[in-house]
Amino acid sequence: MTPTICPKQVVIVGGGFGGLNAAKKLANKSNISVTLIDRRNYHLFQPLLYQVATAGLSPADIATPIRGIFSNAPNIRVVLANVHGIDLTTQKLRANGSEISYDYLILACGAKHSYFGHPEWEDFSPGLKTLEQATEIRRRILLAYERAEKEDNDQIKSELLTFVIVGAGPTGVELAGAIGEIARFTLEQDFRNVHPSQSRIILIEAGERVLPSFSPKISERATRDLANIGVEVRTHSRVTNITPAGVWLSSEFIPTRTAIWAAGVQPSSLNQFLGAALDPAGRVIVTRDLSLPDHPNVYVIGDQAHFEKKDGPALPGLAPVAIQEGRHAAQNILRQSTGQKTKRFHYFNKGQMATIGRRRAVVQAGPIQFDGFLAWATWLIVHIYYLIGFRNRLMVMLQWAWSYITFQKGARLIMSDDWHSYPHGGAKPNS
Amino acid sequence: MTPTICPKQVVIVGGGFGGLNAAKKLANKSNISVTLIDRRNYHLFQPLLYQVATAGLSPADIATPIRGIFSNAPNIRVVLANVHGIDLTTQKLRANGSEISYDYLILACGAKHSYFGHPEWEDFSPGLKTLEQATEIRRRILLAYERAEKEDNDQIKSELLTFVIVGAGPTGVELAGAIGEIARFTLEQDFRNVHPSQSRIILIEAGERVLPSFSPKISERATRDLANIGVEVRTHSRVTNITPAGVWLSSEFIPTRTAIWAAGVQPSSLNQFLGAALDPAGRVIVTRDLSLPDHPNVYVIGDQAHFEKKDGPALPGLAPVAIQEGRHAAQNILRQSTGQKTKRFHYFNKGQMATIGRRRAVVQAGPIQFDGFLAWATWLIVHIYYLIGFRNRLMVMLQWAWSYITFQKGARLIMSDDWHSYPHGGAKPNS
Repeated sequence: MTPTICPKQVVIVGGGFGGLNAAKKLANKSNISVTLIDRRNYHLFQPLLYQVATAGLSPADIATPIRGIFSNAPNIRVVLANVHGIDLTTQKLRANGSEISYDYLILACGAKHSYFGHPEWEDFSPGLKTLEQATEIRRRILLAYERAEKEDNDQIKSELLTFVIVGAGPTGVELAGAIGEIARFTLEQDFRNVHPSQSRIILIEAGERVLPSFSPKISERATRDLANIGVEVRTHSRVTNITPAGVWLSSEFIPTRTAIWAAGVQPSSLNQFLGAALDPAGRVIVTRDLSLPDHPNVYVIGDQAHFEKKDGPALPGLAPVAIQEGRHAAQNILRQSTGQKTKRFHYFNKGQMATIGRRRAVVQAGPIQFDGFLAWATWLIVHIYYLIGFRNRLMVMLQWAWSYITFQKGARLIMSDDWHSYPHGGAKPNS
Repeated sequence: MTPTICPKQVVIVGGGFGGLNAAKKLANKSNISVTLIDRRNYHLFQPLLYQVATAGLSPADIATPIRGIFSNAPNIRVVLANVHGIDLTTQKLRANGSEISYDYLILACGAKHSYFGHPEWEDFSPGLKTLEQATEIRRRILLAYERAEKEDNDQIKSELLTFVIVGAGPTGVELAGAIGEIARFTLEQDFRNVHPSQSRIILIEAGERVLPSFSPKISERATRDLANIGVEVRTHSRVTNITPAGVWLSSEFIPTRTAIWAAGVQPSSLNQFLGAALDPAGRVIVTRDLSLPDHPNVYVIGDQAHFEKKDGPALPGLAPVAIQEGRHAAQNILRQSTGQKTKRFHYFNKGQMATIGRRRAVVQAGPIQFDGFLAWATWLIVHIYYLIGFRNRLMVMLQWAWSYITFQKGARLIMSDDWHSYPHGGAKPNS
């Protein structure tokens, strides 16, 4: 029998890909007690968030209650709270008025949207990081069609049927493709006064090509696939202003009632408490074992951290990076708790992929690059595989099969008690 | 060839059971042009709303886009709008600032909750008529458990784990049963500091028995089934006040943080424009063919109408009543449009049913009454059968099967950006 010693307190902040995988690694380990804190009661599968925004899936399909994931791990305590302060000296967090002590800390708080110093753009161009934002974008897209159906003025109708997506990374490309698909197929039969050809989907990118983290060849293919489903790609275009009436690109104005922001992100504001060097994007520059400089018991991972590869730029804000970092940080804590030295983190790049419309995708895994239907099938299998929980996998598979066969989207609901307050909407009725 | 004559304009207000079935009856009829107006873009299957409120189903599972239902009926135009005025003399409606003329009108606007002259109770005791209300109730129930898990004060913990449902009609009974099930099974493994026996579910009824529209024998069985799953039934108890701290029954006070209103309803405020006699509940008293007295081209159906049976009270506000009335009104319009006389409405009572917890129900169809597992299976089949759309049927069946086998509820999400504003919640964090 091992002597009973006081278990080490590991606190994990954030139940995204990083924090969740760290907690899984620590589940049921002896002499480790974990507190997993999140401001939501669910883990969100962010890579499929664009499908909620485009009415293909329901919120519950891509969200799994965190408590349910760890119901069989008695050493993991799940706490619904907002962390709003960290004291590295006393090793305490402040969370909703109470204090939580830690021996080891993993910060995995992720990132939210950044409007490059223009927070006033958010109202007219919501980002896509949360379920609430996804249902809000869904509401705006469906309402734009509802209003266009009733509109006699051609100019206003054209503005209602113009959708601008800012930022051509994977999220922007996937959103644009899904809206293109809705415009061409899903809503064709539903609306009598809207012809598919009247919809314009414009994808704006400040850089020189779409999917800048992929190879130029993949970017070219993606641009061609997007053009095939009616998405106009505008590279070398920097957004200079967003108003309720539309989007400005320097001196050019694109009138639109629906703009969506998929451009910059900024890490959690908790980074300000760490006294560590931040990169220009605000991410904490971590050491080679993922810990905070001078604080070997504090780890920062995922979108919140800047980990420099030996031979290049920082690792990108992708789910596989967060997953591997989460597991590695947890393993380092296990080593430390038994007196061993920590190990350096090495990212194993499994590649990246993005889907484009209803049966195209691009995949890049090291030297292997492919696109088209095979890439789409790969994308599908990988996403189903990584989706947490048997129920969610089954539901998502069935809904995709149904959508694929029928060209329909099942979750075309405009929810919210005040849809009349649609920012650019009609008169508010008095009843 | 028939000579081309101007089609008759039929306007239907409301896409619930009544309006939807009226429109279906008029779909693809020659010389009939239908405008179906609703303030939502979806038909809501209200009998299953309590399952959204108790995390068993997602909103999209019980809502079907109205446009999709009529995409193959070119004579039906679907309009998303709020009707805020009716002029019976000029035969015009006002809807979101524009005017719509009709030759025939069907009003099927349903009912909303009524707090018997105490609208201030609504904040502390939401009703269950819309998807937004259902997700709000779900949020409150799940948050109460989250807060109880963290609470050290036994008194507050007990208040958090007390759930009061006001009104023991089918909705109240089904809600109480589902919350009882959550308390006993679903959340048992998720929460470490909450024991199932700590939850109290109290069902309050002003009348002398639960399910007053059923036979006394059924009421007795339902009371026994409710007791078996831990629901305390309080009959002869009238609510006199509801505050953030709890519910008053005359001089008795029940401390609770979660009260839900399933008691009174009131019909659409449009009834005030009709100049017709209303019953004490505010419903329009219609003629024997369902039309408005002195306005044979205006029909009022469903929860908005009071139709007196020959031998008893008015028909209750149930889906089968609205469905049959919708079909009948449409058929009368078809007769009128070809110069025939209208027919009297006769309600064919197929019976009623209510489910209690995870495998009990009560069914009453004329002289036939039964309960238990067989009733539950009947309830299941009937609800799946009436659910609109192949996709929804399949999704609901699968989620029920999953819940039944695993004792889990799939949609345990606390959504809303401001969960901190939970009315009786903790301190609002400053980050």
